[in-house]
This record gives sequence, C-alpha cells and structure tokens, in this order.
Amino acid sequence: MKHVAEAPWRKGKLKMTDRDGQEKVRLAAVGLGRWGRVMAAAYHESDVVDLRSCFSRDPVRRGAFASDFGCEEAQSLDELLARDDIEGLVLTVPNDQHAPIIEAAAQAGKHVYVEKPVAVEPADVRRIQEAVAATGIVFACGHSARRLAGVREMRRSLDSGEIGTPSMIEAVFSNERGLELKEGDWRGDPAQCPGGPLTQLGIHQIDNMNYLFGVPSRVMGVGKRGATAVANTMVVAALLEFDDVIGYLGADWLTPGAFTLDLSCTKARLRYELDFSWWSNSADTDAHTRLIKTEIGSDSADPDGRVLSEHAVKLTPRDHLREEIDEFAMAIRGKAAVEVGIDVAVSNVAVVLAVARAINEQRGVDVAEVLEELRV
Amino acid sequence: MKHVAEAPWRKGKLKMTDRDGQEKVRLAAVGLGRWGRVMAAAYHESDVVDLRSCFSRDPVRRGAFASDFGCEEAQSLDELLARDDIEGLVLTVPNDQHAPIIEAAAQAGKHVYVEKPVAVEPADVRRIQEAVAATGIVFACGHSARRLAGVREMRRSLDSGEIGTPSMIEAVFSNERGLELKEGDWRGDPAQCPGGPLTQLGIHQIDNMNYLFGVPSRVMGVGKRGATAVANTMVVAALLEFDDVIGYLGADWLTPGAFTLDLSCTKARLRYELDFSWWSNSADTDAHTRLIKTEIGSDSADPDGRVLSEHAVKLTPRDHLREEIDEFAMAIRGKAAVEVGIDVAVSNVAVVLAVARAINEQRGVDVAEVLEELRV
Repeated sequence: MKHVAEAPWRKGKLKMTDRDGQEKVRLAAVGLGRWGRVMAAAYHESDVVDLRSCFSRDPVRRGAFASDFGCEEAQSLDELLARDDIEGLVLTVPNDQHAPIIEAAAQAGKHVYVEKPVAVEPADVRRIQEAVAATGIVFACGHSARRLAGVREMRRSLDSGEIGTPSMIEAVFSNERGLELKEGDWRGDPAQCPGGPLTQLGIHQIDNMNYLFGVPSRVMGVGKRGATAVANTMVVAALLEFDDVIGYLGADWLTPGAFTLDLSCTKARLRYELDFSWWSNSADTDAHTRLIKTEIGSDSADPDGRVLSEHAVKLTPRDHLREEIDEFAMAIRGKAAVEVGIDVAVSNVAVVLAVARAINEQRGVDVAEVLEELRV
Repeated sequence: MKHVAEAPWRKGKLKMTDRDGQEKVRLAAVGLGRWGRVMAAAYHESDVVDLRSCFSRDPVRRGAFASDFGCEEAQSLDELLARDDIEGLVLTVPNDQHAPIIEAAAQAGKHVYVEKPVAVEPADVRRIQEAVAATGIVFACGHSARRLAGVREMRRSLDSGEIGTPSMIEAVFSNERGLELKEGDWRGDPAQCPGGPLTQLGIHQIDNMNYLFGVPSRVMGVGKRGATAVANTMVVAALLEFDDVIGYLGADWLTPGAFTLDLSCTKARLRYELDFSWWSNSADTDAHTRLIKTEIGSDSADPDGRVLSEHAVKLTPRDHLREEIDEFAMAIRGKAAVEVGIDVAVSNVAVVLAVARAINEQRGVDVAEVLEELRV
C-alpha cells in the first residue's frame, strides 16, 4: 500500500490540525465549474479537510474559486501534482477528462475523489481501474445520495427486519435541464452522456439501489428523445432485476425536479421524497426530505376492513457531500474505509451502459455482459 | 341496434321512476361475492337504477344479498334471463364464467356490465366480442378508476395545456392480498389470473393510462413469485411505450395497499395518491385521495436558484362505481354513451397478456401481436 508508506502529506510543511489535534488532510480541487463549487461549499470548512489549492484551465474561474474558498491556485495540473503537500484531489472535471487526470494523479501519489460517473467510455473505465490498482491510491467516487438520511433509514429498516421482506424498489430522479440543452452541449451527446439523464441523474439512484440490493443481474429499458435541440435520449425508464427484488428507475430531463425512492416490503412501504431545490445545498438537503411509512394500522380478516396508516419517519439530518469528502480524507489517513470505491463506481456505470444498450438494441441485457467489458 | 327497438324494459310492469319521472332501469346482480356486494352498495340506491333481482348458485349468499339490498332473488340464471322486466345484468362472477354468461345474456337481449377483466382466455375474449356484436347489447366493462376525480383532473390538465407536454406516466397499484393466497385459489393460477396482481390490480392502471394516452405499442416486463403458497407471479413491473410518453406499471401483491399515478410534463408534475383503505367505499374514495402538483415556483437562469413549489389541487369528489353503473343504465335508455366498452376492455386485456408474455418469454412484445389474437 504505497499511499500509507510514502504518503506525501508526511512531508507537508503547513500543519493545520483538526479538533483532536490531528493534522488536516490537504486536498486540492480540480475542475472548478458549478459542481466543483457546490462541493467546495460543502467541505471547505470541514474539520478534517484543508482545501489547500485549486486548478482549472480557466484563470478567471480559478481566481474566483481561490478567493471564495480561501485557497491557493495552481497555474497547471503538473504544478499541483508536483507539490508534496497536496495529498488528494477532488476532481469535478468533465467525464471524458477523468481517466487522464486520475492516471497522472495516481502516478504522482495523489489520492482521488472523482465525481460520478467514474467514466463512461469503457477504455477510460479500464484505465482508471488500472491506475488505482497499480498505485494503491485511496479512490472514492461521488455517489453521495446513499448518505441521505432517508436512504440510510431504508437500509436500517431492511436490516432490522421491521418492514418485512422487500419486493420492489422504485426510484425516480428527474429535472428540467434537458429542456435548455443547446446544440453542442456534451450532455446532448449519447457517447459522452449515455441515456442523458440516466448518466447524470439516474446513476445516483442506481447507486442507491446498489446500496440497498447490490448489482442487478439483468436490465431492460425504454428511452425517448423528446422535442429538444440535441440528439440524446431525454427520458429513460428501466427495469432492474435484483435477487428477489424488482427495481424500477425513471430519469426524465423534461420535467420539474423529482427525487423519490419507494420501497415495498411485506410489512410496510417506505417512500422517500426530496425537494430537489435543495439538492446542491448538502447541509440542508436532509431537512427538505420526508420519509413516509405506510403500513396496515388496523388489520382484519375482511380485506375491506383493513385500514392503512401513514406517518412520517423522524430522520436525523446529515450532510451527504461533506460526509463523503470527510470519509475520503479520513481514508487517506487510514482511519476510515471508502464506502463507494472503484468497484461500486464501475458497477454503477455498468448498469448505466447496460440500460443504454438495452434501449438501443431493444433487448434485455445482462449486466455481467457489460461488466466483462469494463473489468481489466 | 336490436336493444333500442326491442328493449325488454318496455314491457316491464313495475314502474319505478327517477327524479325526472323517468322509469328506472331494472338491473339484476349476478355473482354475489365480495365485489358484487361492493358494487351493489354503490348503486342500489341510485336514482336511475332499480336493482330488481339477483342470482348466485349459493342460496345462502343469494338470500343475504336479496335481504341486504332489498331485491328479489332468482333460483337460476335461466329464470333471470327469461324475465321480461330485467333489462341488464351487473356481472361479478369469476373471470372464466364471463364468456358463457355474457353469451346467454346477450341472446336473451339483456345488456351487460361486467367487472374487469372482460376475460383473460383469448377464446373467451373472442366469444364475448362476437356476442356483443351479434346482439347489439349495451356492454360496459368495470374500469372505474378512470372516474376518480384525480384521474379526470389529469386528463383536463393535459387537454388544457397548462402542465405542458407529457413525457412519463408512472402507475402503481399494489396490496397485500398475495400474502394470504392458499393453494388452489384461482388468483394463484397463472392461466386464470395472468401475472397475478397484473390482472387483478394492474389492469386498472392500464385503463387509466389508456384513458390518458391510449393503447401502448410495445411492452416489456419483469415478474417475481415471492415466497407464497401458489405458483403465480406476485410482483410485476412493466414498461409501456406510448406515442411520445413512456409508461411504467408496478403491481405488487406482497405489500400494504398502494395506488399512485405520477404524470411528468414539461411545466409540472402531477402525483395522485389514493388511500387504498377506501377503494371499496366508492362514495368516499375521492375524499381519501390527493393530487399534488409540483412546478417551478421561482425560476432562475442558475439551476441552483430554482425553487420548486408543491400544492394540493382541489378536487370535486365523485363516486366511481355508482357513476359507471348509472352510465350503463342511461346507455340502456340511449341517453348516454358507455365510456369503457368492448374495444377498450379488450385492449386493456391485450396489454395484460402482452406484459405476461413479455415476462414469460423475456422479450419486448408488440401489443398488436396480442390484439390480433384477441380480435374476431
């Protein structure tokens, strides 16, 4: 494990410390667009992270980021990677730049957190896996939605047995952003963004379903383009076969924001709804969600005598984005395990690609078929 | 149109009249099980219907029904069909008895309302169509859910254009009744009840989607058995391709009652939820539903600046079961058109059978393929 023996942070000069007197983990942000800023807003005041520097090819964007989040700015990626005091990168560059940057970072001994999807080009997915395996860096992929309090509560409810045996999981993640796509936008290109909202939104729910039920064996799907300026699929619906559970995924880029998970079990149904307005304010997202539990409140041998009872389950708010960066930082120090590492990240992409293939080829697709093409 | 020229009610002796002094339409209930009683509770005090008689092979059940709903009881179906004063039947017998009884009724000049599904055996479906076409009886099939106030409001919102262009319709109808199926129950037999909850529950949502978007061109599906005492599928999920809209249908017999419709459009999303406890109390069902409209309340060029707004749409309660029997009765008098006649009933069954085939044969199925087998 090269990153333990030779961790560059051991040579660092500036020693910010966390509450326990531990040295903070020094990270740099690479890719400073909208999501890079959303992420930084979530973690730059973390107790365990020292946002030390940043890089973007755009000097104006770079300057603004450095000023807003109180960090240095690097003139080039190479300059950043050459610094001994930078331990890890928070990477939020376009998907097709993930592979080369992760390779360079891994070779420089930098740990990497990368926004989802890890990559969509099979060759890129393989390169990233090879780089991670060869260098032993700590690697984390941004699937923060599984950290939402309601998703955690679903997992707990399943594990405790209190909601009985699960039969269906239905997940929807939609928003209106396909309506404003302009010709030439990478999101409108089926190669860069397979299935449109499937790659951008649906993958979050694929990860949530992975968290609850693992990797589906087989998928099928339907896609529609809608009346937009681009050639990509704007609406996707998919069925996912888990061991004993059927999954549904809806991802629609032509409608106001929606994020829901419906879990059907023998003793209860759980419905989780999130006000998408708060998606990017990770400290407040949980406060704008609700988990509704429906069960038979008054039972009867006569089906018409049964009365359903519905109530909101109390949730303790978390911060889904800060939490995953903190975990990444702690993992760099060997004090935590990364929950969503390379294997889960790759299997999530495999499900996206399998659904896209199912739509294109109008057939059910075994996820193993795609995973074989992605594995090194 | 034989039923107009020779309508047996013209010879009737008892002349109950409605509020406008019109003679009430004399009906008889055939099949007096749970659903027959639910139906009678809905219509026996209708202003336009005179529930004159009833028949079941079970004399105890028959006596109780006659006593509870204040009607005569027939000793045989033939006796009922021979009466000149009975104009139409409300048929709630098991699915495999629909064809022979409808044939006999049509030949006796009796109009027929039959509970859904019209039939599931292709030969039965053809026989029923032939009987209806040959005799010209008024024929109605019980797909009452489309009469719920929220479903009507969805249709109105689409027609007015106020919610924009639709992209997805997601429908779920589930309950716990698969959990108590015993060996030998017809609901547990894939031949009598294809797809289990698909035939019993899902078909209601298939009709709702028919009402909103017509007949899908192609379907695919996944089914699971679950740990029950019977060999039938207990959980079904299906994707349905409409012209420009993707449909999803979930029907799960292993979870507390759920009835929801989610309609995604460019300007708003509409979610309709029904408290399944009230499904059989048709006068009160609508009062236990809610239609939630979500739209962008505060718009912004910055996606993170957009704020969603959610509010309940006011609905005027209706009575979905009484309404369809009243319409059937009025149609017998030539004063109304039946909304769900033989063609819609058959296409709904075609979708059920297409999904069951898609599950069994693990392929996408064109609904036209099944419709061809059902059409006479």
